[in-house]
Amino acid sequence: MKPVNIGIIGLGTVGSGVVRLLHRNAEEISRRAGRSILATHAVVRDTSLARDCPTHLLFLTTNPYDVTDNSEIDIVIELVGGIGFAQDVIQRALENGKHVITANKALIAKHGNEIFSLALNKGLTVAFEAAVGGGISIIKVLREGLSGNFINRIVGIINSTSNYILSDMSENTVELSESLRNAQQLGYAETDPRFDIEGIDAAHKLAILASIAYGIPLQFDRVYIEGISEITSTDIAYADELGYRIKHLGIAVRRSNGIELRAHPCLVKKDELLATVNGIMNAIQIDGDAVGHTLHYGAGAGSEPTASAIVADIVDVVRALTSDPNNRVPHLAFQPQLLSDLSILDIEEAKIPFYLRLDAFNEPGVLADITHILGVHLISIEAIQQKETNSEDGIVTILIITHEIVEKFMNEAIKEIEALDCVSGRVKRIRLHLSDAKKIVS
Amino acid sequence: MKPVNIGIIGLGTVGSGVVRLLHRNAEEISRRAGRSILATHAVVRDTSLARDCPTHLLFLTTNPYDVTDNSEIDIVIELVGGIGFAQDVIQRALENGKHVITANKALIAKHGNEIFSLALNKGLTVAFEAAVGGGISIIKVLREGLSGNFINRIVGIINSTSNYILSDMSENTVELSESLRNAQQLGYAETDPRFDIEGIDAAHKLAILASIAYGIPLQFDRVYIEGISEITSTDIAYADELGYRIKHLGIAVRRSNGIELRAHPCLVKKDELLATVNGIMNAIQIDGDAVGHTLHYGAGAGSEPTASAIVADIVDVVRALTSDPNNRVPHLAFQPQLLSDLSILDIEEAKIPFYLRLDAFNEPGVLADITHILGVHLISIEAIQQKETNSEDGIVTILIITHEIVEKFMNEAIKEIEALDCVSGRVKRIRLHLSDAKKIVS
Repeated sequence: MKPVNIGIIGLGTVGSGVVRLLHRNAEEISRRAGRSILATHAVVRDTSLARDCPTHLLFLTTNPYDVTDNSEIDIVIELVGGIGFAQDVIQRALENGKHVITANKALIAKHGNEIFSLALNKGLTVAFEAAVGGGISIIKVLREGLSGNFINRIVGIINSTSNYILSDMSENTVELSESLRNAQQLGYAETDPRFDIEGIDAAHKLAILASIAYGIPLQFDRVYIEGISEITSTDIAYADELGYRIKHLGIAVRRSNGIELRAHPCLVKKDELLATVNGIMNAIQIDGDAVGHTLHYGAGAGSEPTASAIVADIVDVVRALTSDPNNRVPHLAFQPQLLSDLSILDIEEAKIPFYLRLDAFNEPGVLADITHILGVHLISIEAIQQKETNSEDGIVTILIITHEIVEKFMNEAIKEIEALDCVSGRVKRIRLHLSDAKKIVS
Repeated sequence: MKPVNIGIIGLGTVGSGVVRLLHRNAEEISRRAGRSILATHAVVRDTSLARDCPTHLLFLTTNPYDVTDNSEIDIVIELVGGIGFAQDVIQRALENGKHVITANKALIAKHGNEIFSLALNKGLTVAFEAAVGGGISIIKVLREGLSGNFINRIVGIINSTSNYILSDMSENTVELSESLRNAQQLGYAETDPRFDIEGIDAAHKLAILASIAYGIPLQFDRVYIEGISEITSTDIAYADELGYRIKHLGIAVRRSNGIELRAHPCLVKKDELLATVNGIMNAIQIDGDAVGHTLHYGAGAGSEPTASAIVADIVDVVRALTSDPNNRVPHLAFQPQLLSDLSILDIEEAKIPFYLRLDAFNEPGVLADITHILGVHLISIEAIQQKETNSEDGIVTILIITHEIVEKFMNEAIKEIEALDCVSGRVKRIRLHLSDAKKIVS
């Protein structure tokens, strides 16, 4: 059978990994796919640059049309990232009748609806397993493996950079700025780390997972986003004392009135599987009505873990070449004409337990004042701790963990607490993730 | 589009779960599959029995031919278990041109090669996601999600009953017989628990996973099998002191001279993810050359987790109805004509670290004698502990953890140690699982 020819646009860390993997595991891959898969063309900015892959097997070019418009190429892989140019080359490839594979979560989260619609009109596939969770296969599991389930919740560590930084801050008792420098030196963070640190990357991925889980259109602009930049070693130490780790999570929860979609730091009980996921590793927990709790763990970034997902997509696309285009796995799991209009809830409507940290003057009645305000807003307290006086100024730190409460009520309570004379400065608030996984674990 | 009609043979826990799930999530499933999927017929022993599913929607019959030979049925689901009758109905369904779905790991492990060959001749699919790891989707991940990888190792907790019993023995400090009774009362163990307790069920599943991982024929009879029946609360307590839990694992390791395939109890370091998997939960760790270490966790048994896998198979088969039969995902991941003849190693050739426990008379030179024997057989010691004297008879317990060693050498060393005058009784030996997952975790 004729080999399948692959053209790659962008030959950085991931692109080189794909070329290396297709070459190194050529026999194992063709034993599975039933035909040879060859990387034949690559589009780069500079053809003279040395790269960590067998470039002598490739036709290198600076012109993307050499790939998108090339009749010898069957599948185009977009690995340039970003929006404008990436979207242009994907559209051009689709218009030329080529299946597309991409790792571009920002593009899928923001323009996936249009891209998939174009692909469908052309009877083509755009595969994007590498967009979330590196090589974990989470898109495949959620889209195909759990197709019998009504999905209730997704909770995931889906940004490797944030997880590396929080793990490093926790293990080595350093502040974020120092961990960030470590991460940059190790290649785990970009020179401009905002997409990771500010939670935007996690929000892109969460938007994709939620769409697949619930059968709703991609709605990146409805995700509540908060990054890790405000997390300090003090919070990590206090959380530790209370039995928690701090993790940056992407969370989607189905409620009776809509769906919560939020990416933010969270306290997680130490004995939960998610709390034990450190460094650049990712893990996604899915709760389905039939399957119960499942967890899927692996490297969420890096050259070959991401290339692993891309090669899996290639093999899937190669198989789809001979199937009826109307009967393939839908891009977002559900038939596009049957998407639901379930509303995405505002963060103020989300029901969440909280960790609060505040400084107060060590006077009689302080705790009574604070707990009274919480009570008025129907906020139940799970735990409260007063730490020893900080210094001679008579200020004490108070830590509170609450039960689940509508965020709007918490915001009102915090405003009132901050207005108390006995309270000094702002109330630091970090959300909390509670799993009920224990119930079925034993 | 015409609905897909499903006939189910066997309406026990899992069968009832499938009917319930297809009914309860009918809308969510057809939104994904693009057409309605209806359970229309079920074969049972007794049509008058009450069952935990909407049987009024089904045509109930005691005659399997009402399903296998029924022109209105598109897909047959075999859920009777066992070998003889199950194999007969599957073959008959295939001969009548019907796709088959089964959860029967014993049948697939022992007769899968013939069954898949018949299916292939007929251009049909036999799907078996539910045979391993309940609803985890491990077959799909290994067969499709990791198709770019050279798989090095699989390590899994794949028998829910054994894991429940070992967790219970560890948490509640009871002996196996008592935990087994608990498991039977809770429905986690059969009245005749031998398949689970003796490791046979885990070996069935391991044979299936190894075939898919390495592209080798199913070779159940080459799996080394040891169950949990010899594990005592004493071993669990000593393992705990040394920093380990005892788990029953299915392990497949690619070595330069072949593949180790073994199902047996193992010491696992407490801080590894696998050690934290308790109760009826399953978890499978896969090491691929590109993806690194991944772990896949979920309920490994039960009505709806298993039904979740079966419904996912139904949706996959429905999609495959319009694809070229020669271009589908191969049953065992690799093209059948391209299977490899990699040899399965004898357990004596396996390289494993060991935990040893033995009683000895508290005399000078005892430790020297024992460590000398280990040294002669090139066995390095990772840790050694002498426990306080048991009683006035002057006997002490010695615990040893060794580095990795070829099992044959360990057998020889144990024989010599048992022959020492200063050693009382047999040497208790439990294998150990060492993960190098740490290296990429942080």
